Amino acid sequence: MEQVREGSVDVDAALSRLRHMPFEDLGFAKIDHHRALRHGMPEVIFGVGKTPDQIATIAGRLLENAKNVLITRADPATAEFVIAQIPAAEYFPASRAIRIWGDRILHGKGKIAVVCAGTSDIPVAEEAQITAEVMGNQVETIYDIGIAGIHRLMSNRARLIEARVIVVCAGMEGALPSVVGGLVSCPVIAVPTSVGYGASFHGLAALLGMLNSCASNVTVVNIDNGFGAGYVASLINRA
Amino acid sequence: MEQVREGSVDVDAALSRLRHMPFEDLGFAKIDHHRALRHGMPEVIFGVGKTPDQIATIAGRLLENAKNVLITRADPATAEFVIAQIPAAEYFPASRAIRIWGDRILHGKGKIAVVCAGTSDIPVAEEAQITAEVMGNQVETIYDIGIAGIHRLMSNRARLIEARVIVVCAGMEGALPSVVGGLVSCPVIAVPTSVGYGASFHGLAALLGMLNSCASNVTVVNIDNGFGAGYVASLINRA
Amino acid sequence: MEQVREGSVDVDAALSRLRHMPFEDLGFAKIDHHRALRHGMPEVIFGVGKTPDQIATIAGRLLENAKNVLITRADPATAEFVIAQIPAAEYFPASRAIRIWGDRILHGKGKIAVVCAGTSDIPVAEEAQITAEVMGNQVETIYDIGIAGIHRLMSNRARLIEARVIVVCAGMEGALPSVVGGLVSCPVIAVPTSVGYGASFHGLAALLGMLNSCASNVTVVNIDNGFGAGYVASLINRA
Amino acid sequence: MEQVREGSVDVDAALSRLRHMPFEDLGFAKIDHHRALRHGMPEVIFGVGKTPDQIATIAGRLLENAKNVLITRADPATAEFVIAQIPAAEYFPASRAIRIWGDRILHGKGKIAVVCAGTSDIPVAEEAQITAEVMGNQVETIYDIGIAGIHRLMSNRARLIEARVIVVCAGMEGALPSVVGGLVSCPVIAVPTSVGYGASFHGLAALLGMLNSCASNVTVVNIDNGFGAGYVASLINRA
Amino acid sequence: MEQVREGSVDVDAALSRLRHMPFEDLGFAKIDHHRALRHGMPEVIFGVGKTPDQIATIAGRLLENAKNVLITRADPATAEFVIAQIPAAEYFPASRAIRIWGDRILHGKGKIAVVCAGTSDIPVAEEAQITAEVMGNQVETIYDIGIAGIHRLMSNRARLIEARVIVVCAGMEGALPSVVGGLVSCPVIAVPTSVGYGASFHGLAALLGMLNSCASNVTVVNIDNGFGAGYVASLINRA
Amino acid sequence: MEQVREGSVDVDAALSRLRHMPFEDLGFAKIDHHRALRHGMPEVIFGVGKTPDQIATIAGRLLENAKNVLITRADPATAEFVIAQIPAAEYFPASRAIRIWGDRILHGKGKIAVVCAGTSDIPVAEEAQITAEVMGNQVETIYDIGIAGIHRLMSNRARLIEARVIVVCAGMEGALPSVVGGLVSCPVIAVPTSVGYGASFHGLAALLGMLNSCASNVTVVNIDNGFGAGYVASLINRA
Amino acid sequence: MEQVREGSVDVDAALSRLRHMPFEDLGFAKIDHHRALRHGMPEVIFGVGKTPDQIATIAGRLLENAKNVLITRADPATAEFVIAQIPAAEYFPASRAIRIWGDRILHGKGKIAVVCAGTSDIPVAEEAQITAEVMGNQVETIYDIGIAGIHRLMSNRARLIEARVIVVCAGMEGALPSVVGGLVSCPVIAVPTSVGYGASFHGLAALLGMLNSCASNVTVVNIDNGFGAGYVASLINRA
Amino acid sequence: MEQVREGSVDVDAALSRLRHMPFEDLGFAKIDHHRALRHGMPEVIFGVGKTPDQIATIAGRLLENAKNVLITRADPATAEFVIAQIPAAEYFPASRAIRIWGDRILHGKGKIAVVCAGTSDIPVAEEAQITAEVMGNQVETIYDIGIAGIHRLMSNRARLIEARVIVVCAGMEGALPSVVGGLVSCPVIAVPTSVGYGASFHGLAALLGMLNSCASNVTVVNIDNGFGAGYVASLINRA
Repeated sequence: MEQVREGSVDVDAALSRLRHMPFEDLGFAKIDHHRALRHGMPEVIFGVGKTPDQIATIAGRLLENAKNVLITRADPATAEFVIAQIPAAEYFPASRAIRIWGDRILHGKGKIAVVCAGTSDIPVAEEAQITAEVMGNQVETIYDIGIAGIHRLMSNRARLIEARVIVVCAGMEGALPSVVGGLVSCPVIAVPTSVGYGASFHGLAALLGMLNSCASNVTVVNIDNGFGAGYVASLINRA
Repeated sequence: MEQVREGSVDVDAALSRLRHMPFEDLGFAKIDHHRALRHGMPEVIFGVGKTPDQIATIAGRLLENAKNVLITRADPATAEFVIAQIPAAEYFPASRAIRIWGDRILHGKGKIAVVCAGTSDIPVAEEAQITAEVMGNQVETIYDIGIAGIHRLMSNRARLIEARVIVVCAGMEGALPSVVGGLVSCPVIAVPTSVGYGASFHGLAALLGMLNSCASNVTVVNIDNGFGAGYVASLINRA
Repeated sequence: MEQVREGSVDVDAALSRLRHMPFEDLGFAKIDHHRALRHGMPEVIFGVGKTPDQIATIAGRLLENAKNVLITRADPATAEFVIAQIPAAEYFPASRAIRIWGDRILHGKGKIAVVCAGTSDIPVAEEAQITAEVMGNQVETIYDIGIAGIHRLMSNRARLIEARVIVVCAGMEGALPSVVGGLVSCPVIAVPTSVGYGASFHGLAALLGMLNSCASNVTVVNIDNGFGAGYVASLINRA
Repeated sequence: MEQVREGSVDVDAALSRLRHMPFEDLGFAKIDHHRALRHGMPEVIFGVGKTPDQIATIAGRLLENAKNVLITRADPATAEFVIAQIPAAEYFPASRAIRIWGDRILHGKGKIAVVCAGTSDIPVAEEAQITAEVMGNQVETIYDIGIAGIHRLMSNRARLIEARVIVVCAGMEGALPSVVGGLVSCPVIAVPTSVGYGASFHGLAALLGMLNSCASNVTVVNIDNGFGAGYVASLINRA
Repeated sequence: MEQVREGSVDVDAALSRLRHMPFEDLGFAKIDHHRALRHGMPEVIFGVGKTPDQIATIAGRLLENAKNVLITRADPATAEFVIAQIPAAEYFPASRAIRIWGDRILHGKGKIAVVCAGTSDIPVAEEAQITAEVMGNQVETIYDIGIAGIHRLMSNRARLIEARVIVVCAGMEGALPSVVGGLVSCPVIAVPTSVGYGASFHGLAALLGMLNSCASNVTVVNIDNGFGAGYVASLINRA
Repeated sequence: MEQVREGSVDVDAALSRLRHMPFEDLGFAKIDHHRALRHGMPEVIFGVGKTPDQIATIAGRLLENAKNVLITRADPATAEFVIAQIPAAEYFPASRAIRIWGDRILHGKGKIAVVCAGTSDIPVAEEAQITAEVMGNQVETIYDIGIAGIHRLMSNRARLIEARVIVVCAGMEGALPSVVGGLVSCPVIAVPTSVGYGASFHGLAALLGMLNSCASNVTVVNIDNGFGAGYVASLINRA
Repeated sequence: MEQVREGSVDVDAALSRLRHMPFEDLGFAKIDHHRALRHGMPEVIFGVGKTPDQIATIAGRLLENAKNVLITRADPATAEFVIAQIPAAEYFPASRAIRIWGDRILHGKGKIAVVCAGTSDIPVAEEAQITAEVMGNQVETIYDIGIAGIHRLMSNRARLIEARVIVVCAGMEGALPSVVGGLVSCPVIAVPTSVGYGASFHGLAALLGMLNSCASNVTVVNIDNGFGAGYVASLINRA
Repeated sequence: MEQVREGSVDVDAALSRLRHMPFEDLGFAKIDHHRALRHGMPEVIFGVGKTPDQIATIAGRLLENAKNVLITRADPATAEFVIAQIPAAEYFPASRAIRIWGDRILHGKGKIAVVCAGTSDIPVAEEAQITAEVMGNQVETIYDIGIAGIHRLMSNRARLIEARVIVVCAGMEGALPSVVGGLVSCPVIAVPTSVGYGASFHGLAALLGMLNSCASNVTVVNIDNGFGAGYVASLINRA
């Protein structure tokens, strides 16, 4: 960095070099401070399988270099613990996400629409929304427009067409992404949810439906992976 | 039957008794001449796993008591063999059905619509159509109105609303029955087809999608079972 | 509606127009007051994934336009909460359904039989029964007539033959719909239940059995979906 | 054996010793001449994955010590080759079995009934029949008595009750063993067949159905394993 | 029965007639007092999905006609409730069975061996043992002889060969029935157990292994179905 | 359109209106000439389940309004037939695609990289490449850089980082998208291929692997769906 | 043993004889004191499905002949109970293992590396580590080097190349063993973990990925089977 | 290399450097001449999905640097084509392998045993054998010792105990590796084969069985992957 200041190394070269630098080793985890730099994105902690203390420690370290941190799948106890240590943190009970959102500059070039089929799909949609927001996007949410009431969907058509990329969350038969995909020209990211019972097999039916979508502009992420959908939508919207 | 003629047994009683009478034993098959009577329906031969000669023999016996016989899943060689012996038989290559349709009285009280999502689903839809026709129904077919082009579906809405029962055939994600089900008030019989590839798993994706339909008026039959759908649609339309 | 009163628009046209009108947006749900009108059916709330408060709110709004409301899969706490606010509501613990049944006019043209194979299948059967009743049908229940004791089934044959449509609930091998289907001429709606253990795989064995039924008059709904079966049975019985 | 003749070793001890003696090694197979002795049963060659020459060689060796040999799943070319070398061999094209039946003494203490649901299940039933016969049993076959025509089954009830053990072959939903099991008191061996299409998944639906049978006297063998069913039925009938 | 006493109807005819007589209807269950007669077996109540009160009521009614009653899969609370009302009842916590064993006459003609692979399979094996005993059999148990320690199995060979029928319970890879089947000439009933983790998929691995057994004398029952295995073993041992 | 010329309707409004206009009905297919307009994309014909004549007819109609047509999954006979009628068509035997590429204007704003793991994945990768090219993109292909030889991948790192979106095709364990996703900041579209044997289950292993990718920038399409991946990559690159 | 002391039997012969000697029968378990001798390995108790008392009893008996005992999958209550009786026992809460490690002689000829992809995989990795240590190996652990951050993996390359055998634990897509396998020449034992959600299906995705590894030096054990991997790694390292 | 000759770089350093050098790019494949060096192993070509010409070209290039080349899964036509160009090549029709074996130095420190359960498993076993041989091992094959004839297995016990590592191939229930694993102390590599029918599901039953082996010394490779098993066995035997 000194070299950059002196001008003997230019910024591009320095950034390129940083992308290959190592990471900080906490013992139970290797923290990669350059991930944010490398992806130009906030740091993300997957909350499952980590203790509140581990999560707070990692988040604290990350905040030394980053302004935006997202913690996914955190239970209320973890949220309470983290907020006690990092007052700027905000908890979203439906999606179980904790967000520290210090830098609110918009990076996205258009709007991201986050759509869900039924009320029960809202937690997954919310995770996508929170992710896209913390990554600098304007997000529009359209909830409860399942395909069995097609007029509810059609009456939101204009808002869908305006979006630059759309995240569609649906459980049960998971058909909403196909219908939305047929209405718009932009990329659609489909998120199967585990909403349903019996032969939904915890989201498998929705997942298979989305993978077999007859709309060509649909790609798919893992069951209940609202975070991944919001993340890729943000990448596309930045392009 | 003599008793009926004499009046000592009334017709209802006789019919009731017939319903419990035995069957003709051909050795390789037990022919139940009263099935037609019992169900008030034509006789049906499932063509798979029977030789052309067996099929022709069974059909011949059945025609002694019935005017309408339907043979499903017959290959062209079988069709040729049967038509040589029963010139009234007609072959439908797409659905591989053979139909002998002597009695064309209408029994259905309304129209049955047979709908399919894509061109590749036509063979299954045709099997449903042929079945419903031979059972005395007026059938309207609406093909290639998959959900990714929702305006093709919407422009056929009036015809759908007119139907008394609708058969919907779809492969891939199998979402068409849900959308159709949301547009109409009548029962919808969903037929998953094996059209697709990869994660369609030979129709499993469509089957699961239909079983998880968010439209309450949808029931499901086996993959590629156009016959079953046409059969039940006919029963409903007769009611 | 003014136009209807004035006579400048006739009732059919008005109804037709209403069918395309939008819906009330509660934020977490879009309430479609015209669904009842469109389907000529009571409103239904799927209870899973909604808070007692949400359910009571939706039910309250619906009751402004409808006399019959059915809430499925509600736990006892929800039931208590709803009944406190809507005293006319009635709770059925076995099937976990809440029913508000203000309009008891019969719409069905015949009887619906609801049959189950074993004592453990009763909750699913009860959901079908309650649904069919609230939709204006006379329902006859025949419980515990599994196929391993075929004489118990045969001794109920007369009651089965009288029905205009039959709902058959069965877990384990799920064979009862095939046997019933062979005894009657009317449509049979098969409901696989999750009753069983080991290789029943939570109802999968029964589901596959029913989809492969050798009786032509059988269609299938999702595992444990007593509601869906009762709903379609009602549609058929109204036809 | 000399010792037996001399009396220094008694017969029981000799037989016991023989049961632990080694086998003949043909390189590609280890022939166990004592299996027949050990099980008191004919030798069986599983035809799949062996050349006609290998099969004929093994059969030839076995016939040096045994009078009854059964070859399962042999194609017509193999049958022709084997019969050319062993004129006493007989081929059954439906079940693709070759049988050399030199010793026709009856060992079974009662009758074995072999039942199948539909015409397409006959090949599997025939394999069971041939196996049971060559193992010294009187076999009664009852074909085409599927459960959708319950009166065909009921009219054969007397013959079923007479049997000491029953083999039931069925594809599709595989429900026949449960119904038969409920009618009789003897053991029922259920054989799922791969007959069916779509959600039968090559016999999986029938297999799961049979494993979940609500009749307590039913056990199950592999899909299409008529041989295994005939074999165990013979063991039971000998007891 | 009067006719039997008078001699106008002989006992066989009377018994035959009784076998077709109806059942007692408790509302929630149809009790078939003649099942014991029909099968010559004790009455069995499947405990899952029934309240303690229902179970005690059914058991009480059955004991008016039967001396032996078996209740499977009963939790401790149910056991306590039943024993309070029927002091003769005995509870087996490992297998969760309740047994009333008034008539201890032996009906079996030989010994039944009940074998299990590991300590964790004992509950399933115990269910088989209790069932076989209450049906009048002498039962020998051989536990913890899994195939990875083949000498433990081989050292029990003599006891295995003495048995007239063997029940083999095994989880994980489920290979014990094949090895036992190769050592003996009698029928082997294989019970897959849900013991294992990961790719055992709750007993599926063991189930598939047993269905594909290379030993010809093996048949299979449902996962953890010790009762079914004991039941069929008893039927075979009575023959 | 007259109105547009006259200026009474502006272009945006006209385009918007066109997007809702109906389609041409060929009987076996409904051709939507406005799809190209709506999506700003070439027309695509899915070749499976259509006769050469049907394909050529549809292609001919489409070429009246479009300059670029892509036919996927066409066998050589179809290709020959189509090329005979449309000499501008070009056939790609590996991916079985036919391409008519009249308008070669670049629409993409950057490069699309198409990567595959092994030689056997090339057909799927080629389908993605051809699709992306006909949609106006500069495409760079990098083949045979599977993860077991990580240095082959690392030596192509610079080319990967330059891409604006990357399509990654892989069979077997399907891990390449995760590794590539970790190296770059742009969106990665993962295509599982059916390359493999045994427990690859025709691409299921690769599909599941990709859905569970630990790299956040990965979305997934159906097995062997190179077309879909190329299509969405083009949409993203146009943004 | 006396004979060995006297010299009339040499040690090899004695050991060979001991390998076939029987076992101690505790009723609920058969203890094989010679297993340690036979395998030259410590005794292992699989904790699931055994009571604390049973475990402590077995461990006590084993310690009469062995110095090293490993108890896997023990809950904290069991650990407390065992440690109260065997103070030398040590509990590892993450992997739920109890270890008695009296004999710490090194048997391994090189180092075993135990690697895991993410923090959540540590419990499984720890089980492998503890197992390998108690079997006399020097173990090096390298945690949190998942493939999406390939530079973290590459920076540990030297440590990987030094190992004589490597255990790699990974959930989600399970791709780490393939990448590690490509970097080294030694055997890699892959352990799929149940870490993940949705389409990971409790470790199935990772398991399938590892079975389809494109690296030739990879073999696989059951999901979460850290013990098995550590065991086989020890056998290889001893060779 | 010059530097090595001059002594300015020592051999270890040179080898280490070579391990990171790039590869030859043939367009359709990237040939890694250093793989042999890196692994100290022969080059291997996976034959599926490559043309005879491609295979011969790759083999030719590899032989410029290597003496031993193995081509797996090659059909007879490919074999003929390759042998025409490389006369030293030898074809094994059962396993469909082509082997060029110029350097026959033994690298293994002990014997590798290759075992299979039935005659139909021989092709997979042969692939393992050929692989192990070309990698410099003494291989002993023991065929047709399936577990249903345990004495055939036991009589080969001495040969098994002598081996330093054992490859066990088995289809159907796949139990042989567990039994062999219990008899020996060395590592056992289990290869499930696709031999079987019905519920073997093309090797899935055997695969699951092996993954759940109760013997601790067993690891598993993909279905029919004889090559992989032979490869890892060789690595272990070299250690």
